[in-house]
Amino acid sequence: MIQKTSDVITPISPAPQSLRLRRIGIDTYQEPVIYLRADSPVCRSEGFAAQSRLRVATRQHEIVATLNMVHSDLLTPGEAGLSEIAWQQLAARHDDLVALSHADTASSFRLVKAMLHGHRLDAEQYQCIASDIAANRYTDLQLSSFVTVCTRDDTTLDDAINLTRAMVKAGEQLHWDYPVIMDKHCVGGLPGNRTTPIVVAIVAAAGIPIPKTSSRAITSPAGTADTMETLAPVNLSLKRMRQVVEQELGCIVWGGSVALSPADDVLIRVQRALQIDNHLQLIASVLSKKIAAGATHVVIDIPVGPTVKVRSDIEARRLSDRMVSVGQQLGIQVAVVLSDGNQPVGRGIGPSLEARDILSVLQGSDKAPQDLLDRACRLAGEILEIANTAPAGLGQIHARKILQEGHAWKKFQAICEAQGGLREPLTARYTQPVTASRAGQVLSIDNRRLAKVAKLAGAPAAAAAGVLLHTRLHNQVMLGEPLFSIHAETPGELSYALHFLKNQPDIIGIGENP
Amino acid sequence: MIQKTSDVITPISPAPQSLRLRRIGIDTYQEPVIYLRADSPVCRSEGFAAQSRLRVATRQHEIVATLNMVHSDLLTPGEAGLSEIAWQQLAARHDDLVALSHADTASSFRLVKAMLHGHRLDAEQYQCIASDIAANRYTDLQLSSFVTVCTRDDTTLDDAINLTRAMVKAGEQLHWDYPVIMDKHCVGGLPGNRTTPIVVAIVAAAGIPIPKTSSRAITSPAGTADTMETLAPVNLSLKRMRQVVEQELGCIVWGGSVALSPADDVLIRVQRALQIDNHLQLIASVLSKKIAAGATHVVIDIPVGPTVKVRSDIEARRLSDRMVSVGQQLGIQVAVVLSDGNQPVGRGIGPSLEARDILSVLQGSDKAPQDLLDRACRLAGEILEIANTAPAGLGQIHARKILQEGHAWKKFQAICEAQGGLREPLTARYTQPVTASRAGQVLSIDNRRLAKVAKLAGAPAAAAAGVLLHTRLHNQVMLGEPLFSIHAETPGELSYALHFLKNQPDIIGIGENP
Repeated sequence: MIQKTSDVITPISPAPQSLRLRRIGIDTYQEPVIYLRADSPVCRSEGFAAQSRLRVATRQHEIVATLNMVHSDLLTPGEAGLSEIAWQQLAARHDDLVALSHADTASSFRLVKAMLHGHRLDAEQYQCIASDIAANRYTDLQLSSFVTVCTRDDTTLDDAINLTRAMVKAGEQLHWDYPVIMDKHCVGGLPGNRTTPIVVAIVAAAGIPIPKTSSRAITSPAGTADTMETLAPVNLSLKRMRQVVEQELGCIVWGGSVALSPADDVLIRVQRALQIDNHLQLIASVLSKKIAAGATHVVIDIPVGPTVKVRSDIEARRLSDRMVSVGQQLGIQVAVVLSDGNQPVGRGIGPSLEARDILSVLQGSDKAPQDLLDRACRLAGEILEIANTAPAGLGQIHARKILQEGHAWKKFQAICEAQGGLREPLTARYTQPVTASRAGQVLSIDNRRLAKVAKLAGAPAAAAAGVLLHTRLHNQVMLGEPLFSIHAETPGELSYALHFLKNQPDIIGIGENP
Repeated sequence: MIQKTSDVITPISPAPQSLRLRRIGIDTYQEPVIYLRADSPVCRSEGFAAQSRLRVATRQHEIVATLNMVHSDLLTPGEAGLSEIAWQQLAARHDDLVALSHADTASSFRLVKAMLHGHRLDAEQYQCIASDIAANRYTDLQLSSFVTVCTRDDTTLDDAINLTRAMVKAGEQLHWDYPVIMDKHCVGGLPGNRTTPIVVAIVAAAGIPIPKTSSRAITSPAGTADTMETLAPVNLSLKRMRQVVEQELGCIVWGGSVALSPADDVLIRVQRALQIDNHLQLIASVLSKKIAAGATHVVIDIPVGPTVKVRSDIEARRLSDRMVSVGQQLGIQVAVVLSDGNQPVGRGIGPSLEARDILSVLQGSDKAPQDLLDRACRLAGEILEIANTAPAGLGQIHARKILQEGHAWKKFQAICEAQGGLREPLTARYTQPVTASRAGQVLSIDNRRLAKVAKLAGAPAAAAAGVLLHTRLHNQVMLGEPLFSIHAETPGELSYALHFLKNQPDIIGIGENP
């Protein structure tokens, strides 16, 4: 009979060490960092070393941060410095006392390694992973490893169901007093496909609840939250969000500020940095956010084309079927719309530029991009139908009417005011047109590289930056005619985008006049 | 015919911006960081943001560093602060002028993503990856993704050949004036398996060149370089290393300081942090280092057992065959020895503790661990045979003789003096025995968890920390008899190790007296 090793020794839990917090004024972006003097007593007694992961706790809050050791008098031995994100996450104030200890390592990471070697995880194991991720126990390296493992081609329906459910459970879930709660989502990769603000305005104007939470950009030059933010505040607390919905039946806010599916926010950051997307995480990300937001129905727009995320109809249907199946298992009705992904939607790529497209559609301007208008009405129509507000097949007509009669614009203004005030999207300081080097017909537009140009120009971090298109597929163009303009906030970013363009022929491919 | 977009615009290359370097005194361990004022002109004109990757260049050197933005008067707008590792890598001096620009992104990362989706890479593509990694163009997230991808079970012989060759080409290669150059390597996971210093001493004493470069620990409580460093300096320049070899025919130095297979050093750091190992990278790491070191022959020891890296004879032979095949393709003769991996070797686990075992073997102490002695002689004997210094089958006998007659100890002392001086390994300040909770026979010893105890106790960063075994498999033990002791440099680390032990029965499993 095997006996366990002796437990005669009583391990001493080290007493938490108290230091005074200093806001050190260093921006480490999204990775919380704590700074300690190398010779401070706590470092020596706890055996802390540079890059150790520490649990940092005030009386009210607790975070996990990476340690950087200080060898100068930037701090005294009794002080702990925090980087900007750490300061914010901890809701810290100058001179707050803080206790430090080694952070729990993410014990679930061994499950990720098991996945690597082909083991299938069950629901509970996915929950362990999601829970550790949501609690910031994964290092960036571990997150990257998990994202990479999820990108294998052999993940199953069960993986999708389990990961989605696990991500819902790892955060808060909203509950509403309405019998139905509508939601929508566009799978990305299609620049300018910014239908949400228009769809929300139409649907809310039709009397259907649509409390929309949206993401910031993952790998695109703008996410819905980035674009909306150029028009109205989006970082609303849950309480404020409920007030807006109570008042207007709709809202468009940043999901991250109401902490739904917190694991998703962590993973999105890593996916963005790696520029990796995969179906498993796409489904889990979208549906976990919708379920957590309390949606009963969701319409998903999947653009299909050679230069967007979903490249073929076959892939689109596979993704679509899986989303519907996962939704069925988890109590949310999923309807999918496949749309054209061959060229950008609207004219703008980048937060402010897309916002201007949205305003022109809502305001009924004759300059409004027709494709954006059509897509928004198609999606809003689909929602009206699954909400049983419009008969099958007539949703689009109803949606157009609401838009054309000005009800959507009125509702949108009301929503923006309720969220904190409608504002004018900023204009970029530096613009440069890119013109056609020959006459002919526009035969192809490369969405991916156009999006890259917009990103190099500064989008979405610089909200006014991006690309403004002046032409569309199949247009005839003349020699020297502007095809698109680059908008940037700094000469350096403008130059960076132009430099990239120099080596990129055929982003807009022009061919012979037929 | 498709025409390219206009190149009428001439993009302006932004002039490099010169700032004055400051050593900011922050230790970010191995990730180079540069600190700039958020309001400095260069940040605005270049569009730098927190976490941007920058190329940082003095007139003589250049590094890639991650940007942290400063929002206080820690720096003036005309200054650039560097973290400790960045300062060292750049060989910087106070007030040096430095030019900053966006770092080239690692263009080869798209190849890693292709691997993810099942594409097989060719030799040239592996070279692009290895080259980018060696030049520090991969972010930590990208490195983690690559390590994860390499951990798939379907990597091939060609992958191993190509990655190994690519890693050799990404760094320097040493050339020696001797007809043969011997080397050895132990696949890890077996705590205390520290044969190298003894083997090198025996082989060099026999007149065979063995310029040994070794690693620091990846996922173990000690690497050969860590252990050797408790006895003599290991961070020798190439020039000094050659001098030692010229004088003594052998050396044991840290490979990292002679920049062989630089991609390997970068990858090892990430593998260590993730605690991920895989055959592809193991082979490429070992053989690229040996080939780069100029070895013509290498003996590889693969311990096999349920709680070490290689779990079964089948896996061992698969790994072994692949190593021999890769070696054949790349011009290095590989001989493999399979050994017992069921319990730690020697008594010590951790740099100083293992060093003491080595000294006792070399010095012919009657306290010397017999298993360590036997293994060292077996490996040294294998080397003597493939070097044709001993007849087939008699290598081990020759090796023992060299050891017993004191030649190996004499040679070891000479090597240490040549490397900078033999020193006494430090002793840990805090020790605590772990005793048997019942009488019986030792039926099992869990290497992995013992290694973890040693690491929690502080090894290898705290060189004197680790575990000292007092018993072996099949020993009879009495109630209360010490099974092993934990050695630590700080009470916090000792407590951390004991806390772990509390929840870990059966690390040393004791059963009924037969």
